[in-house]
Amino acid sequence: MWNLKLSESEPVYRQIVKYIEERIRNGEFPPGIQLPTERKLAELLKVNRSTVSIAYDELRSKGLIRSRQGSGTRVSEDAWGLDFRAPDWAGYLAQGAFQPTLPMVRRIWEENRKSTNINLARGEMSSELWPSEHLRVLAAHLSPRLQLGYGDPRGEESLRAAVSGHLAAQHAIQVPENRILITAGSQQGLLLVIQSLLRPGDAVALEKPSYAYSLPLFASAGIRMFPIPVDEEGLIPDEVIVLHRRHKIRMVFVTPTYQNPTGTVLTSERRQRLIEICADLRIPIVEDDAHGDLTLDGSPQPPGPLASMQGAEHQVIYLGTLSKTFAPGLRVGWMAGPTSVIERIAGVREQMDFGISGITQAIAEQVLKSDLWEQNVKRLRSALTRRRDRMVGVLVGYFGDELDFDVPRGGYHIWVKRQQPFRDQELVETAIRNGVVVVPGSIYGAEPGFVRLTYASSPEVEIEEGIRRLHDAFKRG
Amino acid sequence: MWNLKLSESEPVYRQIVKYIEERIRNGEFPPGIQLPTERKLAELLKVNRSTVSIAYDELRSKGLIRSRQGSGTRVSEDAWGLDFRAPDWAGYLAQGAFQPTLPMVRRIWEENRKSTNINLARGEMSSELWPSEHLRVLAAHLSPRLQLGYGDPRGEESLRAAVSGHLAAQHAIQVPENRILITAGSQQGLLLVIQSLLRPGDAVALEKPSYAYSLPLFASAGIRMFPIPVDEEGLIPDEVIVLHRRHKIRMVFVTPTYQNPTGTVLTSERRQRLIEICADLRIPIVEDDAHGDLTLDGSPQPPGPLASMQGAEHQVIYLGTLSKTFAPGLRVGWMAGPTSVIERIAGVREQMDFGISGITQAIAEQVLKSDLWEQNVKRLRSALTRRRDRMVGVLVGYFGDELDFDVPRGGYHIWVKRQQPFRDQELVETAIRNGVVVVPGSIYGAEPGFVRLTYASSPEVEIEEGIRRLHDAFKRG
Repeated sequence: MWNLKLSESEPVYRQIVKYIEERIRNGEFPPGIQLPTERKLAELLKVNRSTVSIAYDELRSKGLIRSRQGSGTRVSEDAWGLDFRAPDWAGYLAQGAFQPTLPMVRRIWEENRKSTNINLARGEMSSELWPSEHLRVLAAHLSPRLQLGYGDPRGEESLRAAVSGHLAAQHAIQVPENRILITAGSQQGLLLVIQSLLRPGDAVALEKPSYAYSLPLFASAGIRMFPIPVDEEGLIPDEVIVLHRRHKIRMVFVTPTYQNPTGTVLTSERRQRLIEICADLRIPIVEDDAHGDLTLDGSPQPPGPLASMQGAEHQVIYLGTLSKTFAPGLRVGWMAGPTSVIERIAGVREQMDFGISGITQAIAEQVLKSDLWEQNVKRLRSALTRRRDRMVGVLVGYFGDELDFDVPRGGYHIWVKRQQPFRDQELVETAIRNGVVVVPGSIYGAEPGFVRLTYASSPEVEIEEGIRRLHDAFKRG
Repeated sequence: MWNLKLSESEPVYRQIVKYIEERIRNGEFPPGIQLPTERKLAELLKVNRSTVSIAYDELRSKGLIRSRQGSGTRVSEDAWGLDFRAPDWAGYLAQGAFQPTLPMVRRIWEENRKSTNINLARGEMSSELWPSEHLRVLAAHLSPRLQLGYGDPRGEESLRAAVSGHLAAQHAIQVPENRILITAGSQQGLLLVIQSLLRPGDAVALEKPSYAYSLPLFASAGIRMFPIPVDEEGLIPDEVIVLHRRHKIRMVFVTPTYQNPTGTVLTSERRQRLIEICADLRIPIVEDDAHGDLTLDGSPQPPGPLASMQGAEHQVIYLGTLSKTFAPGLRVGWMAGPTSVIERIAGVREQMDFGISGITQAIAEQVLKSDLWEQNVKRLRSALTRRRDRMVGVLVGYFGDELDFDVPRGGYHIWVKRQQPFRDQELVETAIRNGVVVVPGSIYGAEPGFVRLTYASSPEVEIEEGIRRLHDAFKRG
């Protein structure tokens, strides 16, 4: 935006007019969007304010922009009805059924990309943790019999067999490959479940807080979300009965192990109870197990996934992914569920994207069939343990008892509560001004006062400085 | 007992299943108890015996009841330990908002996979045309600086730059990389456009016939489709005015070059006229150019894409793909449009799948930046030319003037009309029984009498035998 290179062959004000006109016309500056103040634009372009004044005057006289006391200068609502014939893109942008990422989440992600900021926000492993060399070696040894056609919409049979073996070995989940579908990651798994099995108006229950509240996926499909309260042992199963009585719950979404954002582990007893309740009420469960393998060194092994429990094969759709345990950029995950469900979802998949590349499927198959995955998770766990210990240490050092938190036993995140109240929006902005990016709890549907801090995403050496900057931000905020 | 009141809001068999299930569950029908025979229950409920049959079948498949010769039908001994508390999956499968592939299309695709059948159906290059060796070499030389994180939802900047260069060099389409978004192929491009820019009830216009009628994508989003009539020069632009007056068209979908299934090329004059009309009516155009590069040897160069025409940058969303010119299994395509549209769609993308793998993006970048793509398309064009010539030859040889068709100048398909009437469903089945798979025109919304024959998809040596089998099928059908 505003990459206007001024030439000397034309009056500057006219170049500004043309520049803005062009962008209104091609839809880049849609009707209603705010333009910079005259002073700001003058600074940006390093020209006199009066030059911008003249340009804005001309645009106003053409009816392309409007200025109003208090609300600044904006592109006219009817700008496109004027002197050109582009479609009313702004109308289209506003109306589409599917909703984009929340503005605050987008802002956080964009700030994360700036190298001057320390990223304690995004649930993504730091690039120093990527298994780049392993992947390059695997890519260099692809079979000559690579699948380069459209392939099976459930994913290649050999990869599904490898996933089946992986689930049996790692999680005691017994599923044959015809009950498995390869996804581009857990989030696409969620999308497919929602679009294939639910309809607008359906009620679903999910932990509150949950990262799922930050996803417009549910709202885009017209799904109503009802919160299941949680404590330090995870969600309270009996609350599902209460919700069902009131709202007729059609599906339960749950992250039993290293829940995101709270990091809790649902106890064995509660897992059992949840399965029982949902069986009684005949409510299907979608289990997200993205972080389940990331038990930190020295922590107890968590209970097995819901999908490994007796009877669960009829009621649980299980979502797994390589994004948190291997590399998000591979874009490979999986779903296990009843055969009829997998087939229905494969039919939808075929309409959406025909599945993921045969090349990444072949690579993922090698990762899962060799001991590479296990080696890598071992390495990751110790790296994450070191990072968690460091973050816990500096949190205590800087904040003392200003912050409350449980030391997480697995996953990527520490879920902290600050004693002194603060406003989320303000915290985000003050933190960014201090060069650190964090996610406030409200994004995940939490009550006020929480922040999710990620020890996985920044370079390890930056964790301390990140917490120092956050401490600074809180002091100022 | 059996005080079942049948309602009209649900299939009768399902009401019977529910009724019995409920009673087994609450103990009213204990394990081992005998149930009425099918005939008896049918009399009792005044329904068809076949309805009871279906209900009993479903209960049997759930393991809830057992039928044995001589001892009739009983509740299973272990029914209480079984899965009768599983969710009502059938209900979920039936209700999901997103629709799967059409049953006839699925059947055709499944038959295609059988090695005994000759595939003249699927719009996919034969595996002998895959650039497997090139891809393996590229995969063996991935950069150590591979993107393995979540990356930019629009796709990596370097790949978008490569696409920008490709579009300029091959099609005289001038788009900077911020107006480009990487997709997993044209169909995902369509999905993203539909989900991001349209809402239920919107009317769109598209050629009739068009492969788009075979896609439940539109119906899943609640979009109404209105046909634009075509002749041998492609769609008739002025018909858009008529449709708009009647239905308020929100978007036009068009495949100007080597249209699928008809193979027509829209003339320059009509392209100009379509752009003018849509500019006047301010209707955005989605241009699918999947086959545009596949001009067969000796055929005239088609006019440039709509997106290359003056003024089109404000009104055309252009869809391109490597699926038809390189390999479908790479799952890489692109979309070019106004910046604000690309950004809106990137936001939706982020919610759906976070984009495609960094590995396939890196490979696609190398394909487009080197001369590999151009070399490969050259090779493909001569292979496709040979295949078309062979198919045209044997069609004339076997059918004489029983079939009418224009010799295609590009793409994958011959669109034939049979003089003698036939029923589509019957043709498909007879052909399959004869060991050849073809797609009847009705799938694409055509009037009766048409068949789409693909010369790209089977091994070249099988084309003649495929046509011979089709001839046989017609003789018998």
